[in-house]
Formats: sequence, C-alpha cells, structure tokens
Amino acid sequence: MEKYGYGVDLGGTTVKLGLLTPEGRLIDKWEIDTDVSGGGRNIPRDIGSSILADMNKHSFDKRDILGIGIGVPGQVWEDGTANAVNLGWDHLPLLGELTSMTGLRAVGGNDANVAAMGEYWMGGGKGYRSLVLVTLGTGVGGGIIVDGKIHVGAHGAGGEIGHIPVNPAEPRSCGCGNHGCFEQYASATGNARIALELLAASDRPSTLRSCPKVDARACWDAARAGDGLAVEIADKYCAYLGQGLAAVANTVDPEVLVLGGGVSRAGQILLDLVLPHYRRFAFPACKNTPIVLATLGNDAGIYGAMAMLL
Amino acid sequence: MEKYGYGVDLGGTTVKLGLLTPEGRLIDKWEIDTDVSGGGRNIPRDIGSSILADMNKHSFDKRDILGIGIGVPGQVWEDGTANAVNLGWDHLPLLGELTSMTGLRAVGGNDANVAAMGEYWMGGGKGYRSLVLVTLGTGVGGGIIVDGKIHVGAHGAGGEIGHIPVNPAEPRSCGCGNHGCFEQYASATGNARIALELLAASDRPSTLRSCPKVDARACWDAARAGDGLAVEIADKYCAYLGQGLAAVANTVDPEVLVLGGGVSRAGQILLDLVLPHYRRFAFPACKNTPIVLATLGNDAGIYGAMAMLL
Repeated sequence: MEKYGYGVDLGGTTVKLGLLTPEGRLIDKWEIDTDVSGGGRNIPRDIGSSILADMNKHSFDKRDILGIGIGVPGQVWEDGTANAVNLGWDHLPLLGELTSMTGLRAVGGNDANVAAMGEYWMGGGKGYRSLVLVTLGTGVGGGIIVDGKIHVGAHGAGGEIGHIPVNPAEPRSCGCGNHGCFEQYASATGNARIALELLAASDRPSTLRSCPKVDARACWDAARAGDGLAVEIADKYCAYLGQGLAAVANTVDPEVLVLGGGVSRAGQILLDLVLPHYRRFAFPACKNTPIVLATLGNDAGIYGAMAMLL
Repeated sequence: MEKYGYGVDLGGTTVKLGLLTPEGRLIDKWEIDTDVSGGGRNIPRDIGSSILADMNKHSFDKRDILGIGIGVPGQVWEDGTANAVNLGWDHLPLLGELTSMTGLRAVGGNDANVAAMGEYWMGGGKGYRSLVLVTLGTGVGGGIIVDGKIHVGAHGAGGEIGHIPVNPAEPRSCGCGNHGCFEQYASATGNARIALELLAASDRPSTLRSCPKVDARACWDAARAGDGLAVEIADKYCAYLGQGLAAVANTVDPEVLVLGGGVSRAGQILLDLVLPHYRRFAFPACKNTPIVLATLGNDAGIYGAMAMLL
C-alpha cells in the first residue's frame, strides 16, 4: 500500500514541495527555484528531478507513492495540460511530463483552489463538509470545496470571489480591468489604501502617522494596540470584507468561511471586527456560519495538492 | 422498466402535478388546491390521493412508475422531512407519507432549486453542464446546478442570490431584514420602484405617466415601444441585474445563466440591455458566459421534480 505522496505548490519565484502521508503528516518540505526562462519550459523537468532525488534519498519504490499533486498559478485542464500567464504556459503538458519522468500518477489544479483543499483537509476547515477559503493578500483569491471536491467552474473561475462587484461607483480600476471589485477593498493593498484615505481625511492623532510604511500589518498592529483611528480603519475594511463574505455565503452557503493570506495574520481581532458586518449582510440561514482563520499558512498548497491524490 | 414519473410543484395556493416520461415528455398536468388548514397537515395525503387516482385512471402498476419528485416552498431534509414556514410545516414527514400512501419512491427539494433542475434538464439550460437559474419575480430566487446536481448548501441557502448585498447604503430594508439585497432592485417589485423613482425625478413625458399601474410589465412594454424614459428605467434596472449576475458568475462560474420569473417575460430586450452591464462587472473568464431565457415557465417545477428521480 502507498505510504506517501508528493504535494507541490508552484509559484512564480519558488516551487514548494512536500512529502506527506495520507493521514496528513508533513514528513519533509523543501523549495526549488522556479525557472521562468524559455516560457517556463523546464519547470516540469525540475519538479520531476527533485521528486526523483527525494525518492532516491528515501529509497522509495514508486509503489510506495500515491502520486504527485500540484497547484499552479493558472489552470490545469482535463487533458493534463496547464496554462499560467505569468510562467508563459499555454497548454503545457504538465501532468503528462511529470508522469513520464517519475512513473507516478499526477493531478493538478489552480493554486487558490488547491490551497482551499489543504485548509479543508488539514487546516481551518478540517471537519467541515464544505468551505470557502478567502485569501486576503496582494489580491483576494478564493476556493470553494463541497464534499471534498474543488468547485472549478465552467471557465476555471469558480471561487474568483476577489472580483465580485461590491461598489459599481468606484472610479479606480481593478487589476482585472473592472471597477469596484471586492479585492479593491478587501486585499492587503485595499486595506492600506483605506488607511491612507482615512489618515488624509482628518488630522486626528494616530500612531500610524509616524509609521514609515502604512501597510495592512501596521494598521492591524496599531488597531490591536488600541489606536482609535486604526480601529476605525480596521472597521471600515471589515465592512467591505463582511459584505463580500456575505455575498459568497448567500450564494454558496458553505459550512464554514476560512480567512487566509497576509491580512488574516491580524488574528482574532479581524474575526471580532468582521463578524457584525458579515451578519448585517448575511441571509438569515447563513448568519451563524462560522468564520475562522486558515491554519496552514504557506503550506496550504502542498497539503491541498496531497489531498487531491486521496 | 419504469415508463413514467410524477413531478409535483407545491405552492401556497395550488399544487401543480405532472406525469412525465424519463425522456422529458410532459404527458399530462393538473392542479389541486393547497389545503393550508391544520398546519398544512393534509397536503401529503391530498398529493398522494391525486397521484393514486391518476395511476388508477391510466391503469398503472407501481412498477411502471419511477417515483414522485416534489419541490416545496422551503427545505426538504435528508431524513425526508420538510419545513415550509408559509404552510406551517416544521419537519413534516413529507417523503415518508408520500411513499407509504403510494408505494412509490419520493424525493424532494426546495422549489427554486427544483425549478433550476427543470430548466437544466429540459429548459433554457438544456445541453449545458452547469447553470444558475435566476428567478425575477416578486422576489429574486435562484438555484445552482452543477453536473446535474442541485447545490443545496450547508443550511439550504445555496443559490439564495436574491440576498447578495449589492448596495450597503440602502436605507430601506429587504423582506429578509437586511439592507441593499439584490432582490430589492432586481425583482419585479424593485423594477416598479425604480420606475416610480425615475418618473418622480423629472417631468419628462412618458407613456408610463398615463398608465393605471406602473409595474414591471408596463415598463418593459413601454421600453419595447421605444418610450425614452421607459428605456432608461429598463437600463437602470439592468445595471443592478448585471451587477448581481456578475457576482454570481464570478463565484460559481456556471456554463450558462438562465433568467426566469415574471420580468424575464420581457424577452430579448431584457437580454440585450443586461448584457453590457453584466460584462462590465464579470471577471474576464466569465464575460462570454451566455445569458438566456428560461423556457418552461410555470412548468419548470414539475419538470425539475421529475428530473430529480432520474
């Protein structure tokens, strides 16, 4: 019986790899550089080599290994090819190459969806039957898991909740080209902008005024320390976050909402502040849906990639 | 082999019943009154009797029949009991009673979800693998179908898209108690309110000013006839509708969006006007998702109830 599997989280700078058991124990993890030269053509070979070297190190036979799961910053299609704009991939035969190099079964998915799978299997969503992971980073990503399966969507855009329109009157454009997307407010970037706007709108004192860089982290640190204006910033941020979470909950109705990404490191204060806003907008049946923090951090992708093999 | 099935659409006033083939042919349909007396206690018996009478009329043996599918204005739980506030049902053993009366298998679901299943099977969504049905009536209902299965949600609120928050600044409250829900604008009721507001905001001439009752239908009739102010009303309505449809598409990413309910009777002009607004808010991967009209009208529920048996 197979005792291990490899979970791979492919990013634009590094590839994170993990050796895990089917019970969810992370035995070992390491990273290799992402070689984006030549349209990212060498990436599958680099990943395959790294896995073969690890198998060799442990004297694994391929019968010991369930396979390779991989999350990519793009789409993996049913035929095993993958697209990833930032890597230069256009229908690159990713899964086929991994299998032909290693003799192992390979499965893959979008990185945000795979991270959601990780939090479902062994993270903040463990024990629930369905979840939505909302990743509050430079942008806002998301993944929907129902009964242990990723909801991919018809065009790979299932869970693209960062682009739910929440403010049609927004004059600034989002990275996607639209106006008033959820991530324009609920990302770490949006959080910092809300802060700068509120700081500029008054001359009320705040420890943030002497801060060399007003980013999401500085805001939450100041809010946690009781800075009045920082608490106001956090509350305004949470009004947007609560609205977007409710839009998702009123559509998908998951058992739990899981918050990940940089802003989620704010911790309990984020949950405390977002909950009343969420409840203001949530459909009655969804008002008590728990909102929890992701627990796997940067390892969510390798856990989720392993979970896809099970 | 079973040649037929019964599809039942339970409403607050009437129960619609249909006899269908597994190929989707509606052989016969009829209605009985909904007896809401005594906490709706007699409804299962009335439905069972009506089906037994129909079987008798056709000299059917129960081996000829796949079963009974039923959509209810509430929830049907895994144990076969059902809740429906407007009928007075609280865990009424619906499916068990239907089976014990008729000897037939019984399955059930929420009426909006079952209607979505009908449009998926034999209506506007036929041939697609996933859809979201958006019902533009007194309120806005919805149902999500993925790979032939209803997405029920963890609290029965999957597809409750009428309650996506689209305008946090709305002072008026929605029927659900929240403020700024999608259905406050995109329902037939919302459509009429938008009309009255635009009529009051100017004294521009419009055929709607001599209309005895400015409802959604009157607005769309006037817009279709080229009335300038009515076209503006329709366009403003469609701005809200497009925003809500995009919120759903950017989350669920279905293959097709299907519009049903009273407002959808406006027809092609509704699709023509909503499309640019939808595209303004849709995530790039979803911008070309087709938006089509529901085709089964009031029969969607009986078709969908039959489809649940297959």
